[in-house]
Amino acid sequence: MSRDERFRAEALALGYSFEGEIRIGGHYSPLVRDGHMLHVSGQIPRVGDEVVVTGAAGEAVDLDRARLAAKICVLRALALIQRSLGSLDQVRRIPGMSVFVQSARHFTQQSEVADAASGVLFNVLGEAGEHARTSVGVYQLPKNATVELSLIASVD
Amino acid sequence: MSRDERFRAEALALGYSFEGEIRIGGHYSPLVRDGHMLHVSGQIPRVGDEVVVTGAAGEAVDLDRARLAAKICVLRALALIQRSLGSLDQVRRIPGMSVFVQSARHFTQQSEVADAASGVLFNVLGEAGEHARTSVGVYQLPKNATVELSLIASVD
Amino acid sequence: MSRDERFRAEALALGYSFEGEIRIGGHYSPLVRDGHMLHVSGQIPRVGDEVVVTGAAGEAVDLDRARLAAKICVLRALALIQRSLGSLDQVRRIPGMSVFVQSARHFTQQSEVADAASGVLFNVLGEAGEHARTSVGVYQLPKNATVELSLIASVD
Repeated sequence: MSRDERFRAEALALGYSFEGEIRIGGHYSPLVRDGHMLHVSGQIPRVGDEVVVTGAAGEAVDLDRARLAAKICVLRALALIQRSLGSLDQVRRIPGMSVFVQSARHFTQQSEVADAASGVLFNVLGEAGEHARTSVGVYQLPKNATVELSLIASVD
Repeated sequence: MSRDERFRAEALALGYSFEGEIRIGGHYSPLVRDGHMLHVSGQIPRVGDEVVVTGAAGEAVDLDRARLAAKICVLRALALIQRSLGSLDQVRRIPGMSVFVQSARHFTQQSEVADAASGVLFNVLGEAGEHARTSVGVYQLPKNATVELSLIASVD
Repeated sequence: MSRDERFRAEALALGYSFEGEIRIGGHYSPLVRDGHMLHVSGQIPRVGDEVVVTGAAGEAVDLDRARLAAKICVLRALALIQRSLGSLDQVRRIPGMSVFVQSARHFTQQSEVADAASGVLFNVLGEAGEHARTSVGVYQLPKNATVELSLIASVD
């Protein structure tokens, strides 16, 4: 399977499509290319018009739902890259990914949430999905989203 | 109007000047150039010695004041770039901007706060102000600032 | 003293060794090289299997302990760079460092915490340790760590 086919398969497995317009919530660009680097804006688990996972992990949201949120975020990021490049085959590396998890005070599994997104990167991109990562627990996120995820990709 | 004139106009409209020393609060550099990239440290809404907007958005601070804070932060970032390059005309792109908003638990308008900074970038830099963006709600910031904002700029 | 000797001296002064395996807490890479840039994943104050400083700064953890946590984080980052490059002598610059401090609501000394890490960069790398920096107060961190720190380094 090509990377683009694996991307479609990952999205399908979640039951979501990322074929339509990728809506964003403000006056900025969802993706900016500068030289060989693509900078993807912070993605929340929005599908179409709806943010599908909201609330704090460890309170309203359990670990599994928070991981689902992280997967949707990273699939949105990949959809933006695919749309910009034509195909995910041109991705050389994902040097950095940041995962912000809306957290209850006692919730300390931000890494386990981020692992769900990391897994998608490896599944879809193979070796090119290798990435450094930072995951932290924040107090609130736009539209009460459970997860926000940003990343940078390099292309050849 | 040149970018530098538009920058002066934006600062004037807020009633603040960024002509003096840009003070920072620790042992690091306000701006580091590495190759074609300028990395600007996290800016809080400090004018001279005073942090002019403090407290949590959604509690002590309403959306308008939080947006003012974001504008001051991004103007400080632009002032640092201008000082480093001599003129804002050499900016090629602002690939990434991060906006951290000190938030009450129920405050979910971090994007609306960050939009104020994004607007300044477009007003001052035009097309070169295009940027990817991440905005999150944090629990506290240095000196109780309402907003902290960092960005990277590329030059030709 | 070479940079590598100064690194060893800094680690020794804290009573910790970073010679063994650098464990991480998820499915990602501790360090990714992309062209001339090294991206180091978020480091928590882990020594061997133990996270040695946990809890919120300003509550369970005082400023001195939080600063210790920041030092351990940045030494881990330097250890990863040293391991990747063979020697810290090849570091050209640390363009950006992000410091996330698990904070009590009233704790506003995130810059003072981050200064401890900045000091280590200057002590070990000299002029090449010059860096831009962002420090914010977050609600929670993986494994209840007091500090998480990520950075990027450039090499010639």
